[in-house]
Amino acid sequence: MTEAVLGRSARKRLTILSAGRDLFLSNGYQGTSVDQIAASAEVSKQTVYKHFGDKHELLLAIVNTALESTVTPFLERIRALADTADLEADLTALAADYLRAVLQEPVVQLRRLVVGEANRVPELAQLYYEHAPARTLAAFADCFSVLHDRGLLRVTESAVAAEHFAFLIVGRSIDQALFYGGPQVLAGIDVDGDVRAGVQVFLAAYQARKG
Amino acid sequence: MTEAVLGRSARKRLTILSAGRDLFLSNGYQGTSVDQIAASAEVSKQTVYKHFGDKHELLLAIVNTALESTVTPFLERIRALADTADLEADLTALAADYLRAVLQEPVVQLRRLVVGEANRVPELAQLYYEHAPARTLAAFADCFSVLHDRGLLRVTESAVAAEHFAFLIVGRSIDQALFYGGPQVLAGIDVDGDVRAGVQVFLAAYQARKG
Repeated sequence: MTEAVLGRSARKRLTILSAGRDLFLSNGYQGTSVDQIAASAEVSKQTVYKHFGDKHELLLAIVNTALESTVTPFLERIRALADTADLEADLTALAADYLRAVLQEPVVQLRRLVVGEANRVPELAQLYYEHAPARTLAAFADCFSVLHDRGLLRVTESAVAAEHFAFLIVGRSIDQALFYGGPQVLAGIDVDGDVRAGVQVFLAAYQARKG
Repeated sequence: MTEAVLGRSARKRLTILSAGRDLFLSNGYQGTSVDQIAASAEVSKQTVYKHFGDKHELLLAIVNTALESTVTPFLERIRALADTADLEADLTALAADYLRAVLQEPVVQLRRLVVGEANRVPELAQLYYEHAPARTLAAFADCFSVLHDRGLLRVTESAVAAEHFAFLIVGRSIDQALFYGGPQVLAGIDVDGDVRAGVQVFLAAYQARKG
C-alpha cells in the first residue's frame, strides 16, 4: 500500500467521522442511518463498515474524537494552575474559560446525544463520563491537593473540593443548557459575575487562613 | 353522560398516561408509537388521540403529571425551612432528602428522555426546566431571603445563593446519574457525608457571623 492510498483512507475516515457527527447531533442516534452517513460522506456503506464496524462503533469513535480535542487541552490548563502565584486571579480566569467551554453548542449537543442514548448505549455514556467529567474532576482534585501542600488551600478531601468547585462554577449553567442549549444560557448570564461569586464561595470554605 | 361513564373515561386517561410513560422511558420518544401505547393501554388508537391529541401532546401531559407529583411536595419542604429553629440540622436533613429524590430512577429517566429530545421537542425541555429545576431554585431563593431577614444567613443575591446550594448538594450526582443511572450513583456515594460537606461549604460562605 502506498502513502497516497493511506492518505486517502485516512481522509475518508475523517470525512465519515465528520458526516456522522453532524447527522447524529442533528437527528439523534436512532434517527440516523448508516445509509445517510455514507451518502453525506460520499462513500459507500461498505466503506463505513470497513472503517468503523457498525453504527454503534462509529458513534463511539465520534465521541472519542470530540472529547480528545476539547477535554485534553483543558486538563493542561488545570495542571498549570497548581503553579499559580495569584490563586484568586488564576482560579477566576480558569473558571471563566471552563464555564464558556462547557456552554459551547457542540459540547452541549454531544452531552444531549449521549444522555439521550444512555439507556440503549450505556457504554457510550460510560465512555463519555470517564473521558470528560471524571477526568476534569480528577485534574482539579490533583491541582487542589498540590495547592493544599503549598499552603494556599486547606483541603481534606481533594475529590470533594474538586466537585464543589466544578459545580459552583458550571453546575446551574451546564444543567440548564441541556434543556435550553448553550448559546441561550450563555446569552442570559454574566459569566464574570457568576464566576466571581462561585470562586468566593469556594475560597470562603477552602482558602487556607493567613497568619 | 353518567358518572360511571366519566369515571371510565378518567380511568382510561390514567391508563394511557401510565402506558405512555413506561414506553417513552424505555424506548425513547422516537422509539415509541401511538400504536404501541394504545396496545399497552388496551384502548384503540382513536381513544389515545381523543384524550391527548397526538403523541407529542401525550408526552407533554406525561411529563406534566410526573413533575406535579414529585416537585410540588418538595417545594413545601423548602418553604417550611424558612421557619427553622436549627438551620444547620434542618438544612442538612432537607439536603439529604433532596439528593435522594433527584437520584430516584424515574426522575433520572425522565430527565434523560427530556434532554435527549430537547432538539426535536424544545417546548418539552422548556416545560420541564420551568416546572422542576427553576421552581426548586426559586423556592430556595425565597427561603434564603427569609433566612437573611431573620439574621441567620448573609445573602446579597438570593438566586445565586440558591444555585450554589443546589449544585453543592446535587450537582455532581445529578450529572453523573444522567450517564450511569440513579441507583448506580446512589450506591456509590455516602449521602450523609456528601451532604454534610456541601452544607459546610454553603455555610462557610453564607452563614451570618455571630456577635
